[in-house]
Amino acid sequence: MSALVFESFLSTPDVVAVFSPTAVIQAMLDFEATLARAQAAEGVIPMAAAQAIAGVCKAELFDLPTLVAAGTRAGSLAIPLVGKLTETVALFDADAAGYVHWGSTSQDVIDTAMVLVTRRALALIDRDLSTLIAAGLSLAQTHGDAPMLARTLMQPAQVISLGFKLVSWIAPLVRSQQRLRAAGQAALQLQLGGAVGTLAVMGEQAAAVSRVMADTLQLALPPGAWHTQRDELAALACEVGVLTGTLGKIAKDISLLAQGEVGEVSEPAGLGRGGSSTMPHKRNPVAAMIALSAALRVPHRVSALLAAMVQEHERGLGNWQAELAESAGLYLAAHGALKALADAVAGLAVDAPRMLRNIDAQHGLVFAEAVAMLFARHLGKARAHVLLERLSHEAVASGHHLRDVALHALAHDDTLRDRFDAGEVAALFDPATAALRAIQVARPQLDALRATAAALSAQAPWAAWLNA
Amino acid sequence: MSALVFESFLSTPDVVAVFSPTAVIQAMLDFEATLARAQAAEGVIPMAAAQAIAGVCKAELFDLPTLVAAGTRAGSLAIPLVGKLTETVALFDADAAGYVHWGSTSQDVIDTAMVLVTRRALALIDRDLSTLIAAGLSLAQTHGDAPMLARTLMQPAQVISLGFKLVSWIAPLVRSQQRLRAAGQAALQLQLGGAVGTLAVMGEQAAAVSRVMADTLQLALPPGAWHTQRDELAALACEVGVLTGTLGKIAKDISLLAQGEVGEVSEPAGLGRGGSSTMPHKRNPVAAMIALSAALRVPHRVSALLAAMVQEHERGLGNWQAELAESAGLYLAAHGALKALADAVAGLAVDAPRMLRNIDAQHGLVFAEAVAMLFARHLGKARAHVLLERLSHEAVASGHHLRDVALHALAHDDTLRDRFDAGEVAALFDPATAALRAIQVARPQLDALRATAAALSAQAPWAAWLNA
Amino acid sequence: MSALVFESFLSTPDVVAVFSPTAVIQAMLDFEATLARAQAAEGVIPMAAAQAIAGVCKAELFDLPTLVAAGTRAGSLAIPLVGKLTETVALFDADAAGYVHWGSTSQDVIDTAMVLVTRRALALIDRDLSTLIAAGLSLAQTHGDAPMLARTLMQPAQVISLGFKLVSWIAPLVRSQQRLRAAGQAALQLQLGGAVGTLAVMGEQAAAVSRVMADTLQLALPPGAWHTQRDELAALACEVGVLTGTLGKIAKDISLLAQGEVGEVSEPAGLGRGGSSTMPHKRNPVAAMIALSAALRVPHRVSALLAAMVQEHERGLGNWQAELAESAGLYLAAHGALKALADAVAGLAVDAPRMLRNIDAQHGLVFAEAVAMLFARHLGKARAHVLLERLSHEAVASGHHLRDVALHALAHDDTLRDRFDAGEVAALFDPATAALRAIQVARPQLDALRATAAALSAQAPWAAWLNA
Amino acid sequence: MSALVFESFLSTPDVVAVFSPTAVIQAMLDFEATLARAQAAEGVIPMAAAQAIAGVCKAELFDLPTLVAAGTRAGSLAIPLVGKLTETVALFDADAAGYVHWGSTSQDVIDTAMVLVTRRALALIDRDLSTLIAAGLSLAQTHGDAPMLARTLMQPAQVISLGFKLVSWIAPLVRSQQRLRAAGQAALQLQLGGAVGTLAVMGEQAAAVSRVMADTLQLALPPGAWHTQRDELAALACEVGVLTGTLGKIAKDISLLAQGEVGEVSEPAGLGRGGSSTMPHKRNPVAAMIALSAALRVPHRVSALLAAMVQEHERGLGNWQAELAESAGLYLAAHGALKALADAVAGLAVDAPRMLRNIDAQHGLVFAEAVAMLFARHLGKARAHVLLERLSHEAVASGHHLRDVALHALAHDDTLRDRFDAGEVAALFDPATAALRAIQVARPQLDALRATAAALSAQAPWAAWLNA
Repeated sequence: MSALVFESFLSTPDVVAVFSPTAVIQAMLDFEATLARAQAAEGVIPMAAAQAIAGVCKAELFDLPTLVAAGTRAGSLAIPLVGKLTETVALFDADAAGYVHWGSTSQDVIDTAMVLVTRRALALIDRDLSTLIAAGLSLAQTHGDAPMLARTLMQPAQVISLGFKLVSWIAPLVRSQQRLRAAGQAALQLQLGGAVGTLAVMGEQAAAVSRVMADTLQLALPPGAWHTQRDELAALACEVGVLTGTLGKIAKDISLLAQGEVGEVSEPAGLGRGGSSTMPHKRNPVAAMIALSAALRVPHRVSALLAAMVQEHERGLGNWQAELAESAGLYLAAHGALKALADAVAGLAVDAPRMLRNIDAQHGLVFAEAVAMLFARHLGKARAHVLLERLSHEAVASGHHLRDVALHALAHDDTLRDRFDAGEVAALFDPATAALRAIQVARPQLDALRATAAALSAQAPWAAWLNA
Repeated sequence: MSALVFESFLSTPDVVAVFSPTAVIQAMLDFEATLARAQAAEGVIPMAAAQAIAGVCKAELFDLPTLVAAGTRAGSLAIPLVGKLTETVALFDADAAGYVHWGSTSQDVIDTAMVLVTRRALALIDRDLSTLIAAGLSLAQTHGDAPMLARTLMQPAQVISLGFKLVSWIAPLVRSQQRLRAAGQAALQLQLGGAVGTLAVMGEQAAAVSRVMADTLQLALPPGAWHTQRDELAALACEVGVLTGTLGKIAKDISLLAQGEVGEVSEPAGLGRGGSSTMPHKRNPVAAMIALSAALRVPHRVSALLAAMVQEHERGLGNWQAELAESAGLYLAAHGALKALADAVAGLAVDAPRMLRNIDAQHGLVFAEAVAMLFARHLGKARAHVLLERLSHEAVASGHHLRDVALHALAHDDTLRDRFDAGEVAALFDPATAALRAIQVARPQLDALRATAAALSAQAPWAAWLNA
Repeated sequence: MSALVFESFLSTPDVVAVFSPTAVIQAMLDFEATLARAQAAEGVIPMAAAQAIAGVCKAELFDLPTLVAAGTRAGSLAIPLVGKLTETVALFDADAAGYVHWGSTSQDVIDTAMVLVTRRALALIDRDLSTLIAAGLSLAQTHGDAPMLARTLMQPAQVISLGFKLVSWIAPLVRSQQRLRAAGQAALQLQLGGAVGTLAVMGEQAAAVSRVMADTLQLALPPGAWHTQRDELAALACEVGVLTGTLGKIAKDISLLAQGEVGEVSEPAGLGRGGSSTMPHKRNPVAAMIALSAALRVPHRVSALLAAMVQEHERGLGNWQAELAESAGLYLAAHGALKALADAVAGLAVDAPRMLRNIDAQHGLVFAEAVAMLFARHLGKARAHVLLERLSHEAVASGHHLRDVALHALAHDDTLRDRFDAGEVAALFDPATAALRAIQVARPQLDALRATAAALSAQAPWAAWLNA
Repeated sequence: MSALVFESFLSTPDVVAVFSPTAVIQAMLDFEATLARAQAAEGVIPMAAAQAIAGVCKAELFDLPTLVAAGTRAGSLAIPLVGKLTETVALFDADAAGYVHWGSTSQDVIDTAMVLVTRRALALIDRDLSTLIAAGLSLAQTHGDAPMLARTLMQPAQVISLGFKLVSWIAPLVRSQQRLRAAGQAALQLQLGGAVGTLAVMGEQAAAVSRVMADTLQLALPPGAWHTQRDELAALACEVGVLTGTLGKIAKDISLLAQGEVGEVSEPAGLGRGGSSTMPHKRNPVAAMIALSAALRVPHRVSALLAAMVQEHERGLGNWQAELAESAGLYLAAHGALKALADAVAGLAVDAPRMLRNIDAQHGLVFAEAVAMLFARHLGKARAHVLLERLSHEAVASGHHLRDVALHALAHDDTLRDRFDAGEVAALFDPATAALRAIQVARPQLDALRATAAALSAQAPWAAWLNA
């Protein structure tokens, strides 16, 4: 395991592997190999030297714990790695050793390596975001028209449909996928600047070497080094933060709907999922738990990355390093949350009859606005609102259904009785009727989301790196 | 004053006014007036009622402290405002009173009001971002080629030009302006959903009313209510956070360059600026101070807004309210920082001779890499690096200039002496020569930034709301 | 209003007044008056000068918005205030004007002023913490033994008593009161250091002047100036953060218990409390809303204050100012939350019969562990756990009560039937019996908390400043 | 490596080992063994079962990655561990297997395990805090009276002594050690509550079992389970946050003093410390870098832990898990910073002559207040301040030393000349004289700190766990 145990536990093996020491070191070595080859191609260093260097750029040749310990003393992981790489090259080709890391600097290799591994993390996120969106849309297809309670400020409010609620889950996910792709395209760029960003050592060939490297690594080619311009990376981290906020909202809804006293949905059961070490009957909403933990943690990571932007002069002291230390955890948490919810929504059990019973248990109170609006045609809104407040209190106090209280009031009020038909009033209390408006609002939105999601799935910018 | 004293002090009167209680309440009343008119236009309520309502939608008619106190009890500022508005309308037209806030909900009026005032804050930010960018570009034009020390990890490193450093200030600002406009366009949208987001009360006319309102208020028309979809607003706040990070980086550089021991730049002096209550000689970098305070505070606001995204069901309990409470402060801090820096950079005094003296004071050590790279052509990089480390230590220990130490070494080393000309080595120690590479790298980037900035200034999406 | 409208709305008028510009400026003037008098007493300045100075140290004599604007330019609110004070004194006594702010510095007056107003905020918090604790203890006395569901991971778990839950609310509140008092005593200290902390100007009299000032203001006398030693203030802010976390926990529990589908508690109703602008039947948990918003916001304020500790040299640039700007909001949010909950818990309606019905609705599943533990005496824990998992699934699938399923299993299992009495098994399903253990655990803890709370209320270190 | 590579790099192997998966799992097994033994001692389970259980409570018997993966599905690391432990016990003693984890719950074992490993982390922190304090006091003894510039708002201000600055480093460290011990004593307590905190299964023996366990593990015995009372742990984390803030302040000062243009201190050089991969002459302040990165990161961790306090009902969903995930990183960062600074301060090179030269380079401006205060005796403070502002400007403009400008002014002003002696004025410009006041202020504080530090080192509450 290459992350703290209670972080791994809330993440996925896939994304933990992406940021493992081996993967990070290999990405650094990929940078060095690509640099050497690009420099050879542009005549900066001999081709034989490039081959000798690239030939030993394999993480398994290096002792990682020793490198990390030496990195702490040196103040940079790149210094001992470059030192060890140079020694290793020298074993085979003493001349070539002189060309290792030529004209580059620690931050070039570390930033580019982080960009490379981050791309893999984004590939995982993009893939599982498509899966989660598809699962949500599929749920909308099977259960979208089921009437259910809307709840505001954690109190039953009115009647909506499940599809209407699903729009509020899926729409921000689709937008997040779009924004994450845009932010990723901008942030995934080569870092190559040399000691202070001017690529002084490579002289005239600098631009060509940069271009070849960017092409080889399939990274964007920035107009210059971005050693202390961290805005693109920070903006990308922010988008991961926004995504995680949406995942938290979905998880919060699931956890509330899954409460024993509500029981409208439940996470899929299965081998070893959500049991209790002590209570045989428990079925815990584990996916929601993981996503909620991410939604709680990630904002603070984003905050750290924003705070780290204040980097001094041409290379920061402490803040760049803090950025490196905080960013992997962001992706670990986000992918853990995303994968957990993708699985949970795909297998979410919906109890539509319970939804109806929960509406019914409100004794008609959630139809009060509808009745008020009907009466308002005659009484004006203010008087109608007051009247329904009174009738609602009566219903609560007496334990009667608001429908009966309202019909009684109607029957005993001369002016109202003349204006409104009892049947018309009673009809307002039908959940299916009440849900119609939500269904009408949700359907076109779901259709549009389905079309956009299909288009997004058709392209998948980082799919090639899923198994890299 | 309508913000806490130590927050106002770090902000600007303009943006404090944008979020003043009066401005927020007026924006809420603008929503109510626009709603009534749009409903009248679509036949939902009588035109006379709309006129009666719109006629009293003036903040000065309401007692703000009383509203806020009542709002605390009610759990929403909209409830007492709508109540009071209804009473006020009733004074003139009892029937019209029944149509106040018709089919809408508290969150509709508050969210839309916040969007309206946020647009004004964005207008201020966009305007002053153009000013700051222009000031930076102008500085690049006057002093861009001045050689100066690059510093990495807060240590003198090599020689760059001021223009090269300015790229690292301006490029992220230009990108922030672009991203802020995009994020603003997406987030500045009408909120209109009624009790639970379905606009149930307005029935068939709902879509048309929404369209008219969005047109009137010049806001984007979303596909549906976004009561618990906070991703666009959060993404916008993130962009403000990224901008503030860049402002902090600029301020940090200014504060370091303005230290008495460095003295390469100083903030403009002037009446009442940056003095000390006790030390007559002090000239404090007050603009940097304000921007640094913002860069320290803003990440935590962004974090709070991301954490607040986890909103329950169809309207959150506590998290939506937290979002409202934290977001104004974000804009207060960001605009304070931006305005301070726009003024400071426009008047920044650059001491180019001091920059040269500071290079000179490093006894040639900052040219060590250049010499190493020259020698490396013959010695290989590793041996050349070790040699220059040794020569650098000699220079430090003896107090001699590295040039002299290096020339001495050259003269006494048979192999080196044959390969390298003393003049060639000495030339590496000329700051102007050393700065050339940075100048070459910076110029095309500055030209590109100038072109982009001009294009961005030509459009200014929110200029109309600058004095709204 | 002297705070942003959506911050005021979540706070209390009392604590908003504590941090109003007038109050802060008056505290700064109190510092200046006290300084002058102490210096006169120690012979540093003439007594007549001290009297002239103290005579005009009245906030109402100054134009606050002008001071704040000038403070932004100057980089410190103290500079224009001291300037204006000097001018004002000079109107009456030209000589005395020369002694204003003698030997002191901006940070002395601002830090001490913030300490003085913070003491008032702590007095409010301490008072209302006592009220909330008393309300909780009173609730324990009236309803403490009522059986209710324990819920873990948001799922019904077993049966506890309300008193048992109240322990988890009250115990951390009592500890917070103790820790806040300790942290407050340490942090509420005089700041007096002069330009760089050495009190150089006052020479030999410095120590005596400090002592007199600390006595007069009833503040702790630190061993020296603490201009960049912010640990005590940060530790105090942390304790406010911890308190707010506990308030959030209580509010979260209330909001969950008050859900329509749970209905075990409800916040007190009353004029203008928790209604909806659209839904006549709604009764929103407004106090929980306020406390939850604080629990969401405050951690980020604490984080900002911790980040601000990194203050450069003898006075920080930007970080000290950030600390000033963030700290008031911390107290605004915390007191808003505390007051809201103190009112809500005092009037909390408890529906004990509903608690029993909610237990009953779980079909006996929450007694599964108890049955497992009984059977485990014979079967061993592992087999008993597996058996009860199976019986629980049967109960869920069949819709039968677990009691009946268990008794049926007992009757049909030869070995179990011989070992266990059906009556013994059935008795495990009695909520009152099940709650006994929780009641036994809770009572002594509640008694101890009652005693500690009484002792804490008997002293009230800052009561004198409640109406200051 | 058991943490992310860029986190390990900023930490120490010691504290990374404390939170390694093996160490955490072993602590969980220690809990299970201790529980079984305590229950046997109190007659709750058979002694033979306890021995069988305790005999296999060895982390090396378990496959950790498999446990973590199963934990993700289960929603708790304890569930698969207890399952595997039960299976393992059963291999040797089928009956004993039934008594594994008897009456306990997942949170009991995980919370207690985290408390146990946290104690080791606190032991490391306490030890190295003593080392850092001693190093600071030693530095004060050797160089404490050296005059140096005080700097406020990052500008040269006046003259202090190094010892005066060291007080501002050491005093908060000593207070942090005191507060950390107190917070640690309170937070390091046994967690034992069973399913919902009532210890229902153990019945009458519950209290005795708890007492024996607390004694054995040498943990505090709380009045009850604290499953959702996270205040003590949060308060402890806050103290780590406050400590890290102070470490950041020290590191910031070192980094500023170590700038090439200031050069008053430098971190110890040594094999592999602080070099550059490209610039042979660089000596980077690596310890400051590590401590600054911690000071940037830790506030956000504290914030996450405070936010996580809002735990639902009797066990939280997501927030408890977030707390677990964030807390280890807090200690990793803090100990990394502390160890780095302890080494750096112990070997800090102080360049006292450079300090004098830096004072001298200010052309006497930093003595302006002293002159103003002298003249103020006659002119009054306001006029003296204005005069010295004018003379300072003259000195800056002319490039003359303020002493010469002041003496010239004195000589040409009839009233001043009569009142003040030129020698008296000139003497104000002597750094040694100017430093006297700071020395007088610092010495007694340093003496007091030395005494307190000695007393704190004499006890060392967690020393026994240093190599546990």
